Amino acid sequence: MRNLAMVAFGGNALLRSGQKGTYQEQLANVEQTCESLCNLIKRGYNIVIGHGNGPQVGNVMLQHEAGNKDFKIPAMPMDFCVAETQGSIAYMIELALRNVFAKNDIYRDVVTIVTQVAVNALDPMFQNPTKPVGPYYTKEEAEKLHEETGAIYKEDPKGNGWRKVVASPRPKRINNIKIIKHLVKGGNVVVTVGGGGIPVIEENDYVRGVEAVIDKDLASALCAIQIEAEEFYILTDVPKVYINFRKPDEKALDVITVEEAKKYLAEGQFTEGSMAPKVRAGIMFIENGGKTCVITEAGQLDNPYCGTRIVR
Amino acid sequence: MRNLAMVAFGGNALLRSGQKGTYQEQLANVEQTCESLCNLIKRGYNIVIGHGNGPQVGNVMLQHEAGNKDFKIPAMPMDFCVAETQGSIAYMIELALRNVFAKNDIYRDVVTIVTQVAVNALDPMFQNPTKPVGPYYTKEEAEKLHEETGAIYKEDPKGNGWRKVVASPRPKRINNIKIIKHLVKGGNVVVTVGGGGIPVIEENDYVRGVEAVIDKDLASALCAIQIEAEEFYILTDVPKVYINFRKPDEKALDVITVEEAKKYLAEGQFTEGSMAPKVRAGIMFIENGGKTCVITEAGQLDNPYCGTRIVR
Repeated sequence: MRNLAMVAFGGNALLRSGQKGTYQEQLANVEQTCESLCNLIKRGYNIVIGHGNGPQVGNVMLQHEAGNKDFKIPAMPMDFCVAETQGSIAYMIELALRNVFAKNDIYRDVVTIVTQVAVNALDPMFQNPTKPVGPYYTKEEAEKLHEETGAIYKEDPKGNGWRKVVASPRPKRINNIKIIKHLVKGGNVVVTVGGGGIPVIEENDYVRGVEAVIDKDLASALCAIQIEAEEFYILTDVPKVYINFRKPDEKALDVITVEEAKKYLAEGQFTEGSMAPKVRAGIMFIENGGKTCVITEAGQLDNPYCGTRIVR
Repeated sequence: MRNLAMVAFGGNALLRSGQKGTYQEQLANVEQTCESLCNLIKRGYNIVIGHGNGPQVGNVMLQHEAGNKDFKIPAMPMDFCVAETQGSIAYMIELALRNVFAKNDIYRDVVTIVTQVAVNALDPMFQNPTKPVGPYYTKEEAEKLHEETGAIYKEDPKGNGWRKVVASPRPKRINNIKIIKHLVKGGNVVVTVGGGGIPVIEENDYVRGVEAVIDKDLASALCAIQIEAEEFYILTDVPKVYINFRKPDEKALDVITVEEAKKYLAEGQFTEGSMAPKVRAGIMFIENGGKTCVITEAGQLDNPYCGTRIVR
């Protein structure tokens, strides 16, 4: 039996800040990340890939806004936009993996599942949406849009204008999880829960999309738990997690227990919106039966002892 | 063993001409089509669904154009745009199917595969691109774009301006076809080859996207053949295929042989760009081992003898 690993990487593994985000740039970026993933495959892992979509879904929402203004094409809600990015990002990951696999004599099929992730309609986060998405508006435009659609708009703290804010509820159920598990156990590399999954609410035998953003590390953690992965890799842009970051006594963490991770979190050692949610996703994975959560950058994957490892 | 059927429906089963194309409209349209598909499920079929994306991918290309103009977001090539519509359209189909299945006490999972379809780089259609896509330009803009990108632009016969034209090569290989077959044999409803598939070229162990549009009926026929479907349903907006259409001796066809279908095609009985490619897809299916190709509208599916049936 092969080891089973879940790998989550950010949308900025494809679309990097400072770049224009052309097709060629995104493909080159993802090919680099996929080249590193070959290290896991060659060590005998079956893998499922979850990915973010932050910069991409931001672009899609701006394109919808512009298309509405210039061509009267109705702008679509968040769930639809996430679905679009699941198609396009997974396509680029598939292309890249197929090519790096061929170059590395790896014979695995890559298959992408468009994935709905159910959230709870009573999730308290819906009472306090905080995640800014889409274009900036003037105060007047934002007030008009709020009246028309009920969506909530908040002023950008940097003074760029007003933006829609949506909730970031916890992922509760991954649609088709049994199929995902079955496909990866068969040796296929499965791409799923793109952008944290298409957010849906399931109530009384009825499923509907909802305007929300699901944290991709939490969604990947849930997937890792449910496919019974031994290891959960969260790829980011630093080789290890640090405590006392950028202070004289800064220290890179090698192996920490869940208890230590919780202590550091409580101390505020990890940045909210960046490392803290990754560490929380790692804790959730271990507390639900996982063996090791590794937080590292893709380029470190040639070393089996890379990164910061959260263990029981 | 259940019967196996491939069902292809047009992008206009979701986005109808005359409508604005809002999220609610598209969902309501697809729910109606999916309600009809329950008739096949209740008669004991396993089904794979292929769908078009004509109006949707047109909108995506306009949104990219507008996003480039208004927000400097690079417009993406055709293959990327098709991938986006695979995500969004399949998401709406999945939502609709999950809801109509729940209402009809049908217990099937619905799973969407983002699907690349390989075409032949030497396909003669690449020498003569004819399929107009994306926004209209002035002659000067079109000439400038041609110089910059090498893409070919032609004048719209209705005088609306100049548009990019891409090739419509034949589908030659559906990526992950074995997985699709395996999933549908397990009773899952599989959504695949959206928009005819993401067009790619496979050469020397290297796969790359290509600007092209694959006919969705041909791609669905290829899928039907390779999953060894007994029946291939092509859903359109008329109950049957006609000969001598709109003439005094107009006749609806019930059952025709491949030989008869070929004769009618040679006589020019079927409109190019509309019924002719559907009949050709049906012939290809039968000549590669299929039993029956049914061309009809979704609303007829409650009748097991509906539509025009092409047989051996």
